[in-house]
Amino acid sequence: MNLSHPLSGVIARCRRLLDPALREAVSVLHPWGGRMAAFAMGWSDADGRSHGGDGGKSVRPAIAMLSAEAVGAPAESALPGAVAVELVHAFSLVHDDIIDHDERRRHREALWKAYGVGPALLAGDALLALAVSQLAGRPEAMKYLSAALIELVQGQTADMAFENRPWRGANEVTVEEYTEMAAGKTGGLLGASAAAGVALGGAPELADRMWDMGRDLGVAFQIVDDMLGIWGDPSVTGKPVHSDLRRDKKTFPVLAALATDGPAARELSAVLVDGITDERSARQAAHLVEEAGGRAAAQALADRYVASALNIMDECLPDATDLRALCDSLVNRVN
Amino acid sequence: MNLSHPLSGVIARCRRLLDPALREAVSVLHPWGGRMAAFAMGWSDADGRSHGGDGGKSVRPAIAMLSAEAVGAPAESALPGAVAVELVHAFSLVHDDIIDHDERRRHREALWKAYGVGPALLAGDALLALAVSQLAGRPEAMKYLSAALIELVQGQTADMAFENRPWRGANEVTVEEYTEMAAGKTGGLLGASAAAGVALGGAPELADRMWDMGRDLGVAFQIVDDMLGIWGDPSVTGKPVHSDLRRDKKTFPVLAALATDGPAARELSAVLVDGITDERSARQAAHLVEEAGGRAAAQALADRYVASALNIMDECLPDATDLRALCDSLVNRVN
Repeated sequence: MNLSHPLSGVIARCRRLLDPALREAVSVLHPWGGRMAAFAMGWSDADGRSHGGDGGKSVRPAIAMLSAEAVGAPAESALPGAVAVELVHAFSLVHDDIIDHDERRRHREALWKAYGVGPALLAGDALLALAVSQLAGRPEAMKYLSAALIELVQGQTADMAFENRPWRGANEVTVEEYTEMAAGKTGGLLGASAAAGVALGGAPELADRMWDMGRDLGVAFQIVDDMLGIWGDPSVTGKPVHSDLRRDKKTFPVLAALATDGPAARELSAVLVDGITDERSARQAAHLVEEAGGRAAAQALADRYVASALNIMDECLPDATDLRALCDSLVNRVN
Repeated sequence: MNLSHPLSGVIARCRRLLDPALREAVSVLHPWGGRMAAFAMGWSDADGRSHGGDGGKSVRPAIAMLSAEAVGAPAESALPGAVAVELVHAFSLVHDDIIDHDERRRHREALWKAYGVGPALLAGDALLALAVSQLAGRPEAMKYLSAALIELVQGQTADMAFENRPWRGANEVTVEEYTEMAAGKTGGLLGASAAAGVALGGAPELADRMWDMGRDLGVAFQIVDDMLGIWGDPSVTGKPVHSDLRRDKKTFPVLAALATDGPAARELSAVLVDGITDERSARQAAHLVEEAGGRAAAQALADRYVASALNIMDECLPDATDLRALCDSLVNRVN
């Protein structure tokens, strides 16, 4: 999201509430675990020195806190939920980077690259344990965090299983399978953020609808992520370019391009079957995905899912201006 | 534990309640995740074929269910807690084997060896997510599961950090540090089993004391595990012999042996400083640990911690015969 945007003030306000609570949650860890956690959260370098980094964009905690405000509660009421979803997000990035062998994250080394696979795995587990402890006594919010954890691992498992499936033919990955995977992998935690926010804010009756809202938003968010992985600027996203293409990740733009079945799709199919092994073939594939209409189809589907999410929000929380703007901004982000 | 023991009937009864509930919990997973989970639980081979295996000994679920019975509730009342602690146990073994590069578990390949590090890591996360979901709506029990998760990762982090510390000198690992690590790594989940059992059985006022009981029991259990790692029969334990010695794990018998500071301890110290690289030096070290009194000291401390655990139990649950016998058996086990 563009931080020169009017939303930057809203985000900054949420961050001022979040940061001390997040640091306090992490402070209980073993010193070594605490150093890894601080690195994973973007607060310090691998040698433990603070570098004034401000971590990620904290979209999920902001959704939790703005959801509480939208039902008339102070943002603080959602703080345990906000801390929990940010910790789960950090946990998932740490484990994802190990699973995907991604060496870079947020313009730095991935945690496993800096500390080793075993320690990083354990640091991820610690972040998850801390997340659960935030809501252990709050079943009305824990219910959604727990559901999000299951969705997350199910979505990640599906995503990983897709890598071993063919691009075309009887066992090809369908758009329906993709959206289910994205709703789980990315949508569950966004849904838990919003649902925990309204539940902790005193309106648990809205939580199921906000969960659905978050899952729709997650599909849109994941499609945009896929697009940034192909056409994004690595100096902005902080991720290596074309890594999804190189590892046969079944991203939506590619699936949509292949489904058009025109000349560009057939050429793309041949390139993918040969395997993307160098920058030249990756650039060629990216070009063919766009030529076949995969980029436009991805943008259109992302827009549709955002519209669906915003519809739910307009029904449940018609006056939630900041929350609405934040969710809307997630499909117009540059990193 | 010896299953020709009178306890075997008690364990079998708990297993009959546990198994269907555990299989139902795991059944929600993605097919691939489900196959890995079934392998990790000991139900099937790596190719997904059921081999009639009965998994582990299910000590923790039995503690949970017998604790509920001890407060006058049916064993079934503790079932969500029993399933949760067994899933957390399975999760911790899966991740531990990755962290420790252990290739064998329960006489078979470790999960990561059979499926790869990334998939196994994710399968472990899935088991943890399922565990949390069992108790998400039961804050009186979730409180202890959550505390156990934090204790578990803290203890594992400490254990891992110990490997990089010297055997002797200013930065040597103390007995106090060891017992704190063991209480966390092994005791937290035993404590959560007993505490969740009484809480779900309708006696939450006893849960804090049962948590303490489990932590003491855990220290004893870990010391016995350390002893089996040095003097146990690998054909019974299913673990490679002397792997703890080879990787400089700070196990209690070795720490106790070194602390005697006699001739055998000094010789042991020299062997350890040279590094245990082959079976000959491992056998020599094991012999010196025993000669220096490390084995006897370990048994004595394990006995003391079991006595302390049983004292708490006698105070809180004077009629809990089966539970008492089960906990007592944990220091007289052969695997």
